[in-house]
Amino acid sequence: MTTTSRTAVQVGDRTIEIRELEVPPLAAGEVLVRIEGCGMCGSDLESYRGAIVKAGLSQYPHVPGHEPVGRILSIPDDVAAVWGVEEGTRIAVEPFVPCGVCDRCLGGEYRLCRNRFIYSCTPTTRGSGLWGGFSEYMVLRPNSVVHRVPEHISIQDAVLFNPFGAGFEWAYKAAGTQVGDAVLVLGPGQRGLASVVAAREAGAEKIIVTGTKRDVHKLAVASAFGATDTIVVDDEDTVGRVMELTEGRGADRVIDVTSQATQPVLDAVAAARPGGTIVIAGLKDAVPIPGFVTDQLVFKDLVMRGALGVSSWSFAQAIRVIGSGTYPLDLMHTHTFGLDDLEHAHAVLAGEVPGEDAIHVTVTL
Amino acid sequence: MTTTSRTAVQVGDRTIEIRELEVPPLAAGEVLVRIEGCGMCGSDLESYRGAIVKAGLSQYPHVPGHEPVGRILSIPDDVAAVWGVEEGTRIAVEPFVPCGVCDRCLGGEYRLCRNRFIYSCTPTTRGSGLWGGFSEYMVLRPNSVVHRVPEHISIQDAVLFNPFGAGFEWAYKAAGTQVGDAVLVLGPGQRGLASVVAAREAGAEKIIVTGTKRDVHKLAVASAFGATDTIVVDDEDTVGRVMELTEGRGADRVIDVTSQATQPVLDAVAAARPGGTIVIAGLKDAVPIPGFVTDQLVFKDLVMRGALGVSSWSFAQAIRVIGSGTYPLDLMHTHTFGLDDLEHAHAVLAGEVPGEDAIHVTVTL
Amino acid sequence: MTTTSRTAVQVGDRTIEIRELEVPPLAAGEVLVRIEGCGMCGSDLESYRGAIVKAGLSQYPHVPGHEPVGRILSIPDDVAAVWGVEEGTRIAVEPFVPCGVCDRCLGGEYRLCRNRFIYSCTPTTRGSGLWGGFSEYMVLRPNSVVHRVPEHISIQDAVLFNPFGAGFEWAYKAAGTQVGDAVLVLGPGQRGLASVVAAREAGAEKIIVTGTKRDVHKLAVASAFGATDTIVVDDEDTVGRVMELTEGRGADRVIDVTSQATQPVLDAVAAARPGGTIVIAGLKDAVPIPGFVTDQLVFKDLVMRGALGVSSWSFAQAIRVIGSGTYPLDLMHTHTFGLDDLEHAHAVLAGEVPGEDAIHVTVTL
Amino acid sequence: MTTTSRTAVQVGDRTIEIRELEVPPLAAGEVLVRIEGCGMCGSDLESYRGAIVKAGLSQYPHVPGHEPVGRILSIPDDVAAVWGVEEGTRIAVEPFVPCGVCDRCLGGEYRLCRNRFIYSCTPTTRGSGLWGGFSEYMVLRPNSVVHRVPEHISIQDAVLFNPFGAGFEWAYKAAGTQVGDAVLVLGPGQRGLASVVAAREAGAEKIIVTGTKRDVHKLAVASAFGATDTIVVDDEDTVGRVMELTEGRGADRVIDVTSQATQPVLDAVAAARPGGTIVIAGLKDAVPIPGFVTDQLVFKDLVMRGALGVSSWSFAQAIRVIGSGTYPLDLMHTHTFGLDDLEHAHAVLAGEVPGEDAIHVTVTL
Repeated sequence: MTTTSRTAVQVGDRTIEIRELEVPPLAAGEVLVRIEGCGMCGSDLESYRGAIVKAGLSQYPHVPGHEPVGRILSIPDDVAAVWGVEEGTRIAVEPFVPCGVCDRCLGGEYRLCRNRFIYSCTPTTRGSGLWGGFSEYMVLRPNSVVHRVPEHISIQDAVLFNPFGAGFEWAYKAAGTQVGDAVLVLGPGQRGLASVVAAREAGAEKIIVTGTKRDVHKLAVASAFGATDTIVVDDEDTVGRVMELTEGRGADRVIDVTSQATQPVLDAVAAARPGGTIVIAGLKDAVPIPGFVTDQLVFKDLVMRGALGVSSWSFAQAIRVIGSGTYPLDLMHTHTFGLDDLEHAHAVLAGEVPGEDAIHVTVTL
Repeated sequence: MTTTSRTAVQVGDRTIEIRELEVPPLAAGEVLVRIEGCGMCGSDLESYRGAIVKAGLSQYPHVPGHEPVGRILSIPDDVAAVWGVEEGTRIAVEPFVPCGVCDRCLGGEYRLCRNRFIYSCTPTTRGSGLWGGFSEYMVLRPNSVVHRVPEHISIQDAVLFNPFGAGFEWAYKAAGTQVGDAVLVLGPGQRGLASVVAAREAGAEKIIVTGTKRDVHKLAVASAFGATDTIVVDDEDTVGRVMELTEGRGADRVIDVTSQATQPVLDAVAAARPGGTIVIAGLKDAVPIPGFVTDQLVFKDLVMRGALGVSSWSFAQAIRVIGSGTYPLDLMHTHTFGLDDLEHAHAVLAGEVPGEDAIHVTVTL
Repeated sequence: MTTTSRTAVQVGDRTIEIRELEVPPLAAGEVLVRIEGCGMCGSDLESYRGAIVKAGLSQYPHVPGHEPVGRILSIPDDVAAVWGVEEGTRIAVEPFVPCGVCDRCLGGEYRLCRNRFIYSCTPTTRGSGLWGGFSEYMVLRPNSVVHRVPEHISIQDAVLFNPFGAGFEWAYKAAGTQVGDAVLVLGPGQRGLASVVAAREAGAEKIIVTGTKRDVHKLAVASAFGATDTIVVDDEDTVGRVMELTEGRGADRVIDVTSQATQPVLDAVAAARPGGTIVIAGLKDAVPIPGFVTDQLVFKDLVMRGALGVSSWSFAQAIRVIGSGTYPLDLMHTHTFGLDDLEHAHAVLAGEVPGEDAIHVTVTL
Repeated sequence: MTTTSRTAVQVGDRTIEIRELEVPPLAAGEVLVRIEGCGMCGSDLESYRGAIVKAGLSQYPHVPGHEPVGRILSIPDDVAAVWGVEEGTRIAVEPFVPCGVCDRCLGGEYRLCRNRFIYSCTPTTRGSGLWGGFSEYMVLRPNSVVHRVPEHISIQDAVLFNPFGAGFEWAYKAAGTQVGDAVLVLGPGQRGLASVVAAREAGAEKIIVTGTKRDVHKLAVASAFGATDTIVVDDEDTVGRVMELTEGRGADRVIDVTSQATQPVLDAVAAARPGGTIVIAGLKDAVPIPGFVTDQLVFKDLVMRGALGVSSWSFAQAIRVIGSGTYPLDLMHTHTFGLDDLEHAHAVLAGEVPGEDAIHVTVTL
């Protein structure tokens, strides 16, 4: 039986074609998945604009989409046993496929795997080519990392496994957040909101979120998710306000999930308490941080760390918490599009469509 | 071309046959290794006597030998790339083959892998059957964990990668040993001596090793490896002596690598300093510890942990330190046998052959 | 001006006299506190029966009471500045007074201070003698550790700072409890209930509490505080039930706060997941644990630790959470007595008074 | 009996007077010490030039000298008991006096004490005024942190307790250095050399030290202390050379102890391995780091931390290792001066005296 797949193929910067591709016979150990939906986030925008190819991390053509949720159509028995799944299981797929045997994989840092394969940026010329989530069908390699997704979770909620995984990884694990902490989240986007949820699950006493005037709808969602305070950075003195809210102590943990802005890095250093931890997760387009003074790290005994990728543990927490129904996740779901609207979806998420205040966008297949 | 392999096959308790087996065609991803030598330790003795099969962890027939070093004869290109080796590379093979995708593997605890395959106790009825190190040829699965072994290391030293890996894992990582610590090693066998080396590399100030009167030759090796003090437990009050040597403070870390004895567990609790750490790595044949009082863990705020298996990092350190030439490892190498003497080798290692004071035994192929 | 203090003085095993003592002039740096109330827990019972003196940790006569809350009447300026308080501040007083300069204090383990002074078991022959909380007035040394107690907290809630501090120390810090964990709390007394609260604040997914048939009222409080499941150990198979509730995985963290019982230690080992952590905080009257097999620690790669005392951080969390009003703490407050009823209070707490099902007892001054 | 003390008093920027001061009667709990010698380091230079007063951390007049070693002349019994010393004990004195009861002290971070008293920068107008080490007599407060100094250690070696304590704190504890690590030390001054010793004690495999052409005598000492490689940054490509020496992996730990230079911060980021740790301990005169790109922290998953001060544990390791005689410390001792030459001593240490290549300078009293 020949199956065909309606699949988005990115063929150049800002150019995606919807093609009807043949699903080829699977190689040994491979798994076929019928995708149900795929989330979109800021890195989809960067990829769409060509940043991934420019950085030498991918080539055209390739199938984008790195936040896929779908259902297993066929799977070899031995892979099913190891994954703990079967045909018909609904799964979320992690973007990185680890080799499993390099020193980093064996040391528990498979996000840094020396031989990793990445869904959404592997060219179609390799194997089946169906290596991305904006596609009816996706092919998985046997050492993929997948998570069961309970049936009661809507597809819009389900694809949040990706940003929420990042929230747990960055605002909890990387930050070392403890019960009773004051957590400052710089940036109220998907990952900022996910950080609020993670900090709340971790028992933080204060969760302070910053945004600009354009972000007030996002700050409202942050409050609904459990942020204790919000700061509009255009109107308020961020550091002064954090000091006030923490009675002069400063924030125990600061999570910077703003992209492109450099001021938040300086704010992070100024607003952290002595001995505190700063997690930088937002990328700044390789721009240096003007005014960054390491002496302040020294005098305040600060830890500043970059955070790349998400561990399996964090993805698992994300799915568990999403499924718990504790948070009004609906508030994040501003848009759902079909594959045909993919280019428009990018524009909406980018804030390029007047009147559309996107927070989270789902593409359904 | 058909290759045959002279291979030890354990067919029952205490019964090993040397057979000439055909090396079958390799399955996808498999690697063929010409074994050069394989070390022996206490768990070989237990396996030989039938403990592994009795515990339901294996079945007869199977090829024993879990400390193999050899040279790669054939390897698929993709596996070679991931392992970072080529045909002809001399390697040491870890006993556990992890699945790479279960929560424990992904969390860096692949020693606890839910789907692990174990060399030396997988039956010959599965695949090639050549799953052990007491064999001219051994077949490796593609997700095996292997380490390059420098050519200048003798085979007797090379096979020490296994007990020395345990030394780093138990006396350093599991114990949390720090620069300046007083480390008490209970038991002067292969793993006790390896613990001395690990503690020394970690900058311990005092390394105290215990043994019985029958162990005086082993205690002498411990001293040559850097133990600062030795205690003959038949003649001396172990705990009193540790307190004296540590000026009443007690040991920061205690490593129990005695097998079957239960008194060392009580000694460990008594000799540890308040706030110290005890690592139990020696098995006691499932015998309870008479007189074990948890109140002492409470009053002394002690951590007591069991330690199972060895991480890749520790195996890598072992090979590095073995290759450095820092330690007079020759002192450990009491016996080298060929495959035909395998049953005798077990008897010698077990101390059942009068006049033979074995410490470490190598089987060469 | 001469002040007198109505004070409980323990003069022998099970013998407390209420005396009118003169408050002597304070020594340099000392602080005078008017006690408002003092909590009672299991260690008060042990002390009352003579265990502390028998263990050589105290002598008669002394003023018992180690969970005091009161108001500062007089304090030297330099001490006030360091403590961050003033006359009139309502405070909770930690039981241990650290020296501040021994290696353990400087290493952050002041619970193990080599020179510590302990309120509630220092004889009246030393200095003012007013070293306990069952007294109108109490004298504090300048290096005491105190915490502000918000005015809106009832005295019954306030004195819970002590058991709740233990909950955070044992069920969170010592256990290393993480978001999403399954936490098993063995024993539903004050410290068990406090452990439920701490585990809940830490984001545990499952909190399972055990008790006997006599504890059903306590198990009900555990449920009200957020326990997801309770087990009546007389009726149910504890380990089997934990396995069922955790889908065969076992508990990530086990907290044993049972006193005297030894079976919970075996249950802890059996119910913990591979790689899990067991915290033993309940004392067993120095009785050995029959059937304790260290091999199980090894095969399961378990950490078992004793936990002694409580850190300042944990006491601070306790007061914060008590003040938050999140938990129906009233359910714990079964009895409040005056100083004249102190002997009766011990009997009630000990369960020796028919019809009185005590959980937590407060003595008001 | 009236005692007088020849004491250096800094009365203004770059102005020190040697005065004959009366030793006043001691206040309660104070300890009198006859100073034997006091080390000098870069922060003495900064203080001498006025940086400490300018920063508002001190006022004139005050007695400088923060690395003192001396002998106890008089001590109250209760303080002697807590310190574990007696009259006549030779001690090294830590610069910070912790309050012992603030949250940071109780959390084991007494370097960040909220109420700390600092020797060498407390004005003479407070109490005895003898709060610095460039003085025959020094007065210590009862909560000072002191360490016994064995009699066999020369005074020049003994005063190294301070920079060597920093070495253990920064290159070991803050960096998390492990056995087998590749450690890059940027800067070959006292603290760089101390970092070499700490890394060596910790079992580092590679220790790479950088310096300028003017530092070649210091790099020679680094090699004598165990550095495996040195890099002259004027002549060589630092990052390229580190990559070469680590076979392309990068350094596991990078310790920046350069002062004022900003390029080392960029080198640290570029030379660290993915997942590595960078410790910034060198101050840069509050100058921003041009070209500092946080994206590199993200892509490499780096931890960068500032390190302020030294823990008691690290000072204790320093004295132990100094006393062990393992390292040819003589190579560091380029100059010893008396109190009358103190201004000259500053000039020599600052490299302002032609022909004098100072590494470490001791002032004897």
